[in-house]
Amino acid sequence: MKIEHVGIAVDDLDSAIQIYEKLLGSSCYKREVVESEDVVTAFMHAGGSKIELLAASSPESIIARHLEKRGEGVHHIAFEVEDIRAEIKRLKGEGFTLVNEVPKPGADNKIVAFVHPKDNCGVLVELCQSV
Amino acid sequence: MKIEHVGIAVDDLDSAIQIYEKLLGSSCYKREVVESEDVVTAFMHAGGSKIELLAASSPESIIARHLEKRGEGVHHIAFEVEDIRAEIKRLKGEGFTLVNEVPKPGADNKIVAFVHPKDNCGVLVELCQSV
Repeated sequence: MKIEHVGIAVDDLDSAIQIYEKLLGSSCYKREVVESEDVVTAFMHAGGSKIELLAASSPESIIARHLEKRGEGVHHIAFEVEDIRAEIKRLKGEGFTLVNEVPKPGADNKIVAFVHPKDNCGVLVELCQSV
Repeated sequence: MKIEHVGIAVDDLDSAIQIYEKLLGSSCYKREVVESEDVVTAFMHAGGSKIELLAASSPESIIARHLEKRGEGVHHIAFEVEDIRAEIKRLKGEGFTLVNEVPKPGADNKIVAFVHPKDNCGVLVELCQSV
């Protein structure tokens, strides 16, 4: 599995984009609203992988809850897979807890499923497949 | 800049290696002690990037302090650079706070320097250059 992106929860998307553009020397190439999650995202390339900045668009957003509990910082690591349904099945068989047993639409033209952090040393893991 | 690896702080290195080997379908190819940091590391490939698991080898380890404060989870994101000294200079000029203004030896045949998380939305960023 390849690291497709690392997702970072941020308080202010515009300010975070400026910071990461300077840090990476790479321009934000896409902003996208994920309405089902009340999240606004911004992407920038980092070699063959990406950084995804995530901000809350409502107080009920999962990102708002993350920021309240843990503050800004890494939210998840996303791994690209070729067949997400087969990976979900494989990981369930290995004893991992899937937050989503059926892939759901994600940002950046992907279908995604999350693996619960309790099984991965506290890391929320996203599986993603291009569609 | 390319994501060279994501570093994950773990309580128990052996158990974490087993978990991430299953998750990634990739074998740990190296364990390495970083004596100056009281850290034991284990690496596995994830596409063109890597996952680095980090455990404490003494209670004074920076990883022990991280685990005490925040529990297991992502510790840092490492970006590969060609000329780390030039990057340190560039980032200082952009206003970032460098934890290390002079590169120091890191794991996996690298010299490394850290950028303080306060400037990067709570993310500890490692710059690394192969030596």
